[in-house]
Parts: sequence; C-alpha cells; structure tokens
Amino acid sequence: MNAEIIAVGSEMLTPFRQDTNSLYLTEKLNALGVAVAFKTIVGDKRTHLVNAVRQALGRVDIVVISGGLGPTEDDLTREAVAEALNRKLTRDADLIANMYTRAAARRVTITPNNEKQADTVEGAVILENGRGTAPGQWLDIVYGKYRKLLMMLPGPPPELKTMFEEQCLPLLKDALPERAIATRVLKAAMIGESHCDSRVAPIYKQYPDVETTILAHLGDIQLNLSCTKPLLAQAKLRVDELAGRIEEELDDLLYSSQGETLEQIVLYYLGMHGSTLAVAESCTGGMIAKRLTDIPGSSRSFLGGAVVYSNALKTKFTGVHPEVLEQYGAVSPEVAAAMADGIRRQCGARYGLAVTGIAGPGGGTEAKPVGLVYFAVSDNDSTETLEKRFTGDRNRIRQLAAQQALDMIRRRFL
Amino acid sequence: MNAEIIAVGSEMLTPFRQDTNSLYLTEKLNALGVAVAFKTIVGDKRTHLVNAVRQALGRVDIVVISGGLGPTEDDLTREAVAEALNRKLTRDADLIANMYTRAAARRVTITPNNEKQADTVEGAVILENGRGTAPGQWLDIVYGKYRKLLMMLPGPPPELKTMFEEQCLPLLKDALPERAIATRVLKAAMIGESHCDSRVAPIYKQYPDVETTILAHLGDIQLNLSCTKPLLAQAKLRVDELAGRIEEELDDLLYSSQGETLEQIVLYYLGMHGSTLAVAESCTGGMIAKRLTDIPGSSRSFLGGAVVYSNALKTKFTGVHPEVLEQYGAVSPEVAAAMADGIRRQCGARYGLAVTGIAGPGGGTEAKPVGLVYFAVSDNDSTETLEKRFTGDRNRIRQLAAQQALDMIRRRFL
Repeated sequence: MNAEIIAVGSEMLTPFRQDTNSLYLTEKLNALGVAVAFKTIVGDKRTHLVNAVRQALGRVDIVVISGGLGPTEDDLTREAVAEALNRKLTRDADLIANMYTRAAARRVTITPNNEKQADTVEGAVILENGRGTAPGQWLDIVYGKYRKLLMMLPGPPPELKTMFEEQCLPLLKDALPERAIATRVLKAAMIGESHCDSRVAPIYKQYPDVETTILAHLGDIQLNLSCTKPLLAQAKLRVDELAGRIEEELDDLLYSSQGETLEQIVLYYLGMHGSTLAVAESCTGGMIAKRLTDIPGSSRSFLGGAVVYSNALKTKFTGVHPEVLEQYGAVSPEVAAAMADGIRRQCGARYGLAVTGIAGPGGGTEAKPVGLVYFAVSDNDSTETLEKRFTGDRNRIRQLAAQQALDMIRRRFL
Repeated sequence: MNAEIIAVGSEMLTPFRQDTNSLYLTEKLNALGVAVAFKTIVGDKRTHLVNAVRQALGRVDIVVISGGLGPTEDDLTREAVAEALNRKLTRDADLIANMYTRAAARRVTITPNNEKQADTVEGAVILENGRGTAPGQWLDIVYGKYRKLLMMLPGPPPELKTMFEEQCLPLLKDALPERAIATRVLKAAMIGESHCDSRVAPIYKQYPDVETTILAHLGDIQLNLSCTKPLLAQAKLRVDELAGRIEEELDDLLYSSQGETLEQIVLYYLGMHGSTLAVAESCTGGMIAKRLTDIPGSSRSFLGGAVVYSNALKTKFTGVHPEVLEQYGAVSPEVAAAMADGIRRQCGARYGLAVTGIAGPGGGTEAKPVGLVYFAVSDNDSTETLEKRFTGDRNRIRQLAAQQALDMIRRRFL
C-alpha cells in the first residue's frame, strides 16, 4: 500500500513557506506500513487541484489532502474532489445546524459563507473538527477498477493532527491489512556521515529486512531502523538486534538509543547524578543555554550562565584575569579553562562548561582563523580543554560549536 | 508562464527530511515572472519518476528537476527524463574524459560507475557542475504541441544554486519574454495576522496590480509586495506607493521596510546611536542573546549578558536583592526591572533588557499562570516594564517572549 500527500495552498508555492503537515502524516502512515510515494503541493486553483487529485488517484492507493477546506472563495478542495470523482456535492443540513449551534455556544456569530464548509462529496464520511470549524471528509471508493482511500483534512496543523489521530487512524487501521512495525532511532554526535556509514553499512546490510536510513545535520547523525513483520515481537527482535550491533560498533559516539536529543541526554545524566551545570558562552552567544532551556524541567539541573561576548564580561562574570586574556588572547585553551572554572564557581554549580571561538565572518587571523573554537569543562577536581577547527559559515560554526560543547559535557558521564 | 519543481529523492519522503531547494528555486523563478504552479516530491523509483515528469510536462511550461543525477543505481533522473520524452540517452565521451581529467587534477580516483553521469538526453545542453561531479542538463523542446523548458539539476544545494545562478538564469532570461518585477518586504512585530490583515486589506485591495501576501509566524508578520510591469520604474512606483500607505497605517508596528530581521534592526539602532546592550534572561534562557549574536558584527553593540534561571543567579549576576525576590516572586515587574537595571550596571552597557516569566509546562499557579511574562528595559534615566500573557506551549511562549523583548528595546529608539 502506498500513499500520496497533497498539500493545498498558494502560500506554499511562495519562497517563504513550506508544507510541514506532510512530515507528520508521513510518520503516521509509515507506522501503519504505508509508504509515501509522492508529495504534491498545489495552489488554490480549481483546475490544478482537480488535476492533482486525479493524478494521485491514478498512481497510489491512499490520497491524503490537507488544506482548502475553509469558508473562503479560495477554499476549493471539496469542489475539486467532487469534480475529480464525478460525484455530487451536497450541502449537509445537519452540519450547518451543528455549525450554528457550536458558534452560539461559543457566543460568536458566523457569517453565511461558513455554510460552504458543509458541502459534502457523495458517499463521504464526515470527520468532525474538534479544534476548528471546517469538517474533514473520508472516502472509501472504487476508482477505475481499484479501491482507493481518500481523505480531506484541514490545513492548520493542530486541527489536522487531532482529526487524523482520532478519526483517520482508526479508519485506516480498519481498512488496512494488519502488520506490525518496530522502529528505533539511534543518534551520534560529532561524526561525519560518510565515516558513520562506512562503519555501520557492513552491519545493517546483514539485516535486509530492517530498513536503515541515515540522516546527518551539523554534527548530529540520526540512524532510523524500521522493520515490518506479521508479529510485533519478531519485528522488535530484529530491530533490537541490529541496534545492539550498531551500538557496539559506534560505542561512545552514540549518545541516544531511543531518539532523545543531545540536550535531553545531558540533562538526564545531570539529573541522575544530582549534578548541576552552568555555562559561559562566547561565540555560541546563548545557543547552549537556549538548547538546554528548551527542555521542560531543565531548571532542576541547569542553573544558568553568562553570555560573555566582550573581554570585560569574561572578567566580570567568569573571573578570567585580564592578564590571562592579554597573554593568551580571548580565543585560547587557557581562557576557555578559566571561563569554565569561573562560571562554575560563580554559579555554585558542580560543572562549568565554556566555549570561546571565532565564528566569523570577521575576526580571523592566520594564527587564529575563523572556525577555531576552544571548549572547557571544569569540576572541583580538574579542568579539561578541547580544540576544534570547524569550516563553513557563521551559522554552521556556531551550531557545530554548541553541539560539540554539549557532547563534551555528556562524555564526562561515561 | 508557470513552472513545476520536482524534487527527486526517497529521503524526502521520510518523516525526517524536507526538500528545501524549491524555496530557492521559487524565489528565482518568481523574480523572472514565472509562477510555481506545482511542487512534486518523488522517490528514487523509475516508474514514479517517469510518471512525475510526464505529468509535469502536461501541465506547466517549465519543469525544474533537482536530484537523482549522481553515480549510484538510485540516481535515475536522466533515464526517467529520456523515457518520459521518448528520447535516446547517449554516454557523452567528452564528458567522461573531462571527468577523469578533473579527478586527476584533484588527485582523486573515480570509479567507473561515475561514467553514468555522462549519460545525456538527446538534444540536451550540458550544464557544467563547478562544485561537484554530476553535470546538469537543459532541454528546450516541443512536447505535445507546446514549447517546454526542462532542466535537470543536482540535489546538493550549493551545486544546484551555483548551476542555476550561472547557467540556467541566463538561458531562462533568454527564453522568456522580458518583464520587470519590483518587490518589497515589510515586517511587523507582536500583532495578530487577522488584525493586521483587517487594517491593511482595505489598502492593498486598491492595488490589484501588486500581489500582496501576508505570512505570520510567532509574533512576526511579513508582508510581501510584488508587482510586474513592462518597465521596472513603473513596477517600483506601484510597490513603493503601496508600501508607503501600509507604513502609514501600521506606523510603529512596522519594524522593517526592507525585509531585515528584528534583531538586525535592534543592532542597527544601537549602532546608529553608538549604544550598547546587555540582557538578563530567565524564561527565554539565551534565546535573545542567540538571536542577536546570529548577526555578524553584533559584538560592536551587544556586550553579552546572563542566563539567570535560578534565583541565586538572579542575585549573583544582576544584583536583585533576595528580599525583592522573596517579596514579589521571581516572575514580577519588580524583579524584571531590577534584572534590567542590574545587568546594565554589571556589564557597563547603555541599555539593560530583562525577561522573567513562566514558560511551562510546570510552574504555573492561579495568580501567576503559565504564559505570564514580565519584561523590562533600563537605561541611566529610567526603567520601563511590560506584562504579557501568552498562550500555547513552552516553545511558543519562549519564542513570543524573545520577540516581545527585542521589540521592546526597538521601541526605545522611536
């Protein structure tokens, strides 16, 4: 069984906005054993929409359409599907009554153009929208000589997700042959994609029944394992066996074996040891603190820290002696170490983490080029430093530096 | 003239990765007056690819294909285009020779499977790849009864962009009727999309020849104006006239009239006044510092600051008296003001900016619910505070708080 996702909306054909619902839908469909074969993005133009729907019905089993169900003239998904299927579109009186009742309960008035949202394609099951006004529709039909499933979902992500989760998933599970899928996500930090692949390919190639994909993004590698079998226990066994062998091979390069983020893992280790952390950031300028505080509950282990862009602040907040700055320069292992040690003492944390480097585009010299970054981790007993030379633009260097810093503190707990 | 962009690659049909080349390509095509009517994402499967190419040729004038030009078995774009067009595919001897010459110059050996990249569709113009090995191809053909342009570009963004910029743009300009397009991007902070639209729609509706689109994202509104005329001066006149009227209507809600980011504008104002800024962040946890330091050269005006997640650090780094924290609570206008004043003095900055709030999901009470955030800006003469109640999840509240804080310091300069 395969599917096509059609995202409807002219705004997604501009340089400014992308369809994101399809990532969610793909995850859910894959979990049911349905592969996504095509994704189409089409504007609010009736002829284009009819064309896209017919095209999809001609090449896949399941068509998921998002968007174009609102009350405005631009919302044409219902009309287009009816035309593509040569079916009638009827205004559903119950739906209209329901719409006015709900509006009255919320003490809002709705304009007559909303009634358009009650237009129903012949044979469609109505999908209620608990989070908005536009209902969805589900069709289980014969097109050409084949059975096709087609669903129309609202564009706003919260409405789409709730409707898909609560109404489409049960309908899909009922319509599809039963299969069991086991998945695992392993993650590694600061290793190149090709290096990683050359080490794990000889292993995962021995498991042709487990689909393995590798995704790389700025110092972060994600290995997705997925296996489909008649029984879940079978699928899980294969995925876990392969995951175990990859864990053995990559060893401490792997930071996560269940898909957690690097910052989640760092906070997990800190929490497990009842430890606290403070950070002093120069070139990363708050990125490390931002990533840690993204995580709910981070305040239990992360105390805070300082963004010390200027030399004066390095002295003020992390106690780096001006002579040390003078002698070694702000971008040096000595200053990184003093920053880590200083922020730890100032904040009364168990660990201090510090980053100082040259993110560019300006500020580089021959001896200290753009991309040179020093890291330090300090605790009561010792201070460890690390030097890295990253390539690329300012954004890339900063992202890699934040990732490296988090990986360095993670390694303290191994 | 309209176009379809086809992104080729099975990885873009997973839940983990999206096509991004199409945003770049859309921008470039729009600038030539070409609208993108469809985007299709298709996997590395020959029958699917042939289907997608034929479909595109049947419904648009210009087909831009990215990806699937590499040397592996999975790279099938050349074969699929040849099949879709019923044209021969010939291995180009010059291209092969060139490939080996270039590899020798770089002292790398290339494997024979690379020769596949020299397969050329009958009638195609070869597009050289200055940044990789896979050449592109350009076809100017008659399909059905219509003239069609079709280009095959490599998937890696740096290769695609260079090839498109240097070779496709001149070819396209030559093939398309001459038109002039003027664009403007206006941006506003902390105003709702529907409120913004209700104020500006009566204005832009008077300019039907200027295409106006509104994009909203977490406290940020972007208005894109675009106008096509025979002469650039005409187009520019209309866009500038509309922009001027929108500027009048939205007044100080607009922070940018040339597409700059809010952090760029804040740094611009600071630089213009020779002023410096320091920030004290509690619930935003480094997001404001991160956004400011994203901008090259930010160190001229942004000194740094503190991430003061714990009460102890609020006292340590921003000098908030423990009794003030005790009396009013960490989330209060009094503490925000003390933080802003304290960080300014500690850092020796002209302005201090502070944020303290409850990002959730935990930590809320009836009196101080999740989403309550206090802001303060302090200078030598005065300290101003602001209270906001945001709704949504942790990420949304944090993003809105960072945006509000940057907008608050911007307003100091009006």
